[in-house]
Amino acid sequence: MAQQDDVFKKIVSHAKEYGFVFQSSEIYDGLAAVYDYGQNGVELKNNIKRYWWDAMTLLHENIVGIDSAIFMHPTIWKASGHVDAFNDPLIDNRDSKKRYRADVLIEEEIAKIDDKIEKEVAKAAKRFGESFDETLYRQTNPRVAEHIKEREELHERFAKAMNDNDLEALRQIIVDRGIVCPVSGTKNWTEVRQFNLMFRTEMGSTADGAMTVYLRPETAQGIFVNYLNVQKTGRMRLPFGIAQIGKAFRNEIVARQFIFRMREFEQMEMQFFVRPGEELKWFEYWKQWRLQWHKALGMGDEKYRYHDHDKLAHYANAATDIEFQMPFGFKEVEGIHSRTNFDLSQHEKFSGKNIKYFDPELNENYTPYVIETSIGVDRMFLSVLCSSYEEQMLDGGDKRVVLHLPAPLAPVKCAVLPLVKKDGLPDKAREIVNDLKFDFATRYDEKDSIGKRYRRQDAIGTPYCITVDHQTLEDNTVTLRERDSMEQTRVSVDDLHKLIHDRVSLTTLLRRLG
Amino acid sequence: MAQQDDVFKKIVSHAKEYGFVFQSSEIYDGLAAVYDYGQNGVELKNNIKRYWWDAMTLLHENIVGIDSAIFMHPTIWKASGHVDAFNDPLIDNRDSKKRYRADVLIEEEIAKIDDKIEKEVAKAAKRFGESFDETLYRQTNPRVAEHIKEREELHERFAKAMNDNDLEALRQIIVDRGIVCPVSGTKNWTEVRQFNLMFRTEMGSTADGAMTVYLRPETAQGIFVNYLNVQKTGRMRLPFGIAQIGKAFRNEIVARQFIFRMREFEQMEMQFFVRPGEELKWFEYWKQWRLQWHKALGMGDEKYRYHDHDKLAHYANAATDIEFQMPFGFKEVEGIHSRTNFDLSQHEKFSGKNIKYFDPELNENYTPYVIETSIGVDRMFLSVLCSSYEEQMLDGGDKRVVLHLPAPLAPVKCAVLPLVKKDGLPDKAREIVNDLKFDFATRYDEKDSIGKRYRRQDAIGTPYCITVDHQTLEDNTVTLRERDSMEQTRVSVDDLHKLIHDRVSLTTLLRRLG
Repeated sequence: MAQQDDVFKKIVSHAKEYGFVFQSSEIYDGLAAVYDYGQNGVELKNNIKRYWWDAMTLLHENIVGIDSAIFMHPTIWKASGHVDAFNDPLIDNRDSKKRYRADVLIEEEIAKIDDKIEKEVAKAAKRFGESFDETLYRQTNPRVAEHIKEREELHERFAKAMNDNDLEALRQIIVDRGIVCPVSGTKNWTEVRQFNLMFRTEMGSTADGAMTVYLRPETAQGIFVNYLNVQKTGRMRLPFGIAQIGKAFRNEIVARQFIFRMREFEQMEMQFFVRPGEELKWFEYWKQWRLQWHKALGMGDEKYRYHDHDKLAHYANAATDIEFQMPFGFKEVEGIHSRTNFDLSQHEKFSGKNIKYFDPELNENYTPYVIETSIGVDRMFLSVLCSSYEEQMLDGGDKRVVLHLPAPLAPVKCAVLPLVKKDGLPDKAREIVNDLKFDFATRYDEKDSIGKRYRRQDAIGTPYCITVDHQTLEDNTVTLRERDSMEQTRVSVDDLHKLIHDRVSLTTLLRRLG
Repeated sequence: MAQQDDVFKKIVSHAKEYGFVFQSSEIYDGLAAVYDYGQNGVELKNNIKRYWWDAMTLLHENIVGIDSAIFMHPTIWKASGHVDAFNDPLIDNRDSKKRYRADVLIEEEIAKIDDKIEKEVAKAAKRFGESFDETLYRQTNPRVAEHIKEREELHERFAKAMNDNDLEALRQIIVDRGIVCPVSGTKNWTEVRQFNLMFRTEMGSTADGAMTVYLRPETAQGIFVNYLNVQKTGRMRLPFGIAQIGKAFRNEIVARQFIFRMREFEQMEMQFFVRPGEELKWFEYWKQWRLQWHKALGMGDEKYRYHDHDKLAHYANAATDIEFQMPFGFKEVEGIHSRTNFDLSQHEKFSGKNIKYFDPELNENYTPYVIETSIGVDRMFLSVLCSSYEEQMLDGGDKRVVLHLPAPLAPVKCAVLPLVKKDGLPDKAREIVNDLKFDFATRYDEKDSIGKRYRRQDAIGTPYCITVDHQTLEDNTVTLRERDSMEQTRVSVDDLHKLIHDRVSLTTLLRRLG
């Protein structure tokens, strides 16, 4: 675990050092849980977004995009349930004046019991040596049994309080367990109160006052309120989908793990509208297809797993997460949800408008059911970064840091390097740049030794380095160095465009998904 | 003028009807000055953004991008001057309870005098007929002279009050001119007070309270506070530029003209960092280059003009607008500003950090000067839409509405249409779609007559329609119909990809800029 933490720290620092992710407002000592994307980060992020957008809209005849505004009519968030129920339970310690999420305090208490159990087991394992039967021990040892019982009771009580939205019960757990503030060490707690996670602001200015609006906490509602406009003006028939990429905002009290949970983040969401009764068939389709999309990147099939939800939100009848193996464990990067007709029905109710779909085949009006696929751009970015990072020991004792980015996602596609800064090699190199630059992000670099220049490109994940040497002037060939294998092959300048295109273009990746 | 208004109304309604722009939250009766982009709008908008991004970053070796967050440390807006000076002067009428921008009330008063002058001239022109010398009349007629004098005096007084930020003087103009509220008809005005245009919200939650942060009113500051990070991690040397595309927010009291002035909008800004003393040379470079970028779209060179600023912001030493001929007159779509070292110096002062650039050639530390190019995505979108819209009378008395969109910006690149819905033509058409779809946004359409299908594609600006007929099955040729000329040529299916690519790809457009 310590080693995993270590790797993650290195990745975070690499992201800063090579212009992928900067702390927001760094010269002003930062803004908590907000990050900026640097010159390489923005390209990686844009390439991820394009891969998603093109895969969803170009490869599916019945999916189109939209771009709805961050500001929406405030009643939309009443209808969606966010005004009333998008809350975290907060509690203050009166001595330290620190504020905590009550649920997180209790989760940490549960984790402590887990720790106790693991310690007992580890101690016994040491004591019994080879002959230790862990499963049997866990089932029979009275101290472990006691901890397990304690844990189960606590967990049940906690789950009930959360379900019932019972703030007093949450507080009572904290009191009964004798949980203390990590700062003051005291049990001097306030009441628990609900804290809504939506950012709010005042729009307009009239003598009667302004209107309170929210920064959207998800992009999905922008699709729901526009679905009939898109269906009608786009002459769409069920089943059809609407895709959207955009910012969303949540005032997280405890934001963690770099860009994994931020207050300002970006979503790629698609809502797929289907006939009632057909939703579970389509849920399965999208569950499979979305995983295929991830796997086509070639980062390793074993890094993904599904996490089917046992407990469903009240409006859902099926839900699963696609989890990715981050340095800090398997974590959700995407959710696929069968949301029934909940959202559309709510908007019908709250807007007072008829937004039913007319099905020309059935000659019937009804409210479509919806399958949602929802992925966090920033989480996806983090998964790609973490999965690509490698410190490699090379033959001869040299070390290199390399990002094995999927080539179509790489910020820079190729770097053109004159071997020396004279004899006309820079001119020839620039000539090549000027030919490639219209189609690929191409860099020119003449500073430092060729080895150092290769390392610089490795560190940002550039799939190809093209070296111009004296032979180039004679026979118009260059060496093409491949990032992962570090193999160099001599190729004609005339073949460069096609060679690079075949590996780095987004089309190549899309064709894998067919 | 009435006719121009009429055309603009038609464009707005076309934008809605064909899925380009919807009113935000329409089923909730809308949200003022906020719009959503529909299925065709989002593609047109994305294509505009990509054209800008690729032209700036791929064609300039020394320009890279970033993507900074909308949320920034609040002190940044102190440093930039927005907290203190980004205001509109507002005044309320006590009887109607309506609120107005004091400056707009006065501008309307000036426009009324202009109207009087024009009426006098028009009256005289009618009276004198053919022999009327308008210039002479304007110079010599005593009534006109009186109006001109009145206008000049009012304008001067107004300009002084605005410059001095003198709210009482603004109010006095309103009182002296006897301006009445259009609703109540009374002169019962309150004081004028400043209203800051930044949206604000509360971030975080601690027992001590939350932090007030702003939604950025411009993307530029995100570049300034990151410039040294980009320079260092990207090993950039002066001159170099940083490009960014992103949302910005302004709480406009009077938002107007569809998507021309919105409360939530998108900017494409590039800040170019240069040695002090070289800024005017680079200002000229960017002034030329940016116009070339616009003109390369081929919408008509005569539709653009520069508007050099006489009166400069206190931090600028040169500024110009690129204006585009909208149906409602020549309007700014882009600004090019020589901002000196004002912003960076302010951030140095307010952050207390040394953010000077070290110039290895001069062996010297200094604060770079900055040239900014700033363009509104939504305005650019509107200019493309307005300039492309045409109602055409065809031979035979038929009418068509066509969008002559620059082909690389068109939402859909080609539509494949089986002439009839039988005889295997749909299968063949789908085969063609399945070949083209990886590279181009391709539509399949088999509904209605072929003529109706052409019209539908014309209305959304699709450059090519490909019609599959019985001959196709025999010799593998199709008709390729070009949108603007409506000419149809018989081409081999094998040549389709290249033919379409050559006209619609972004690369084609970029090569024009070289």
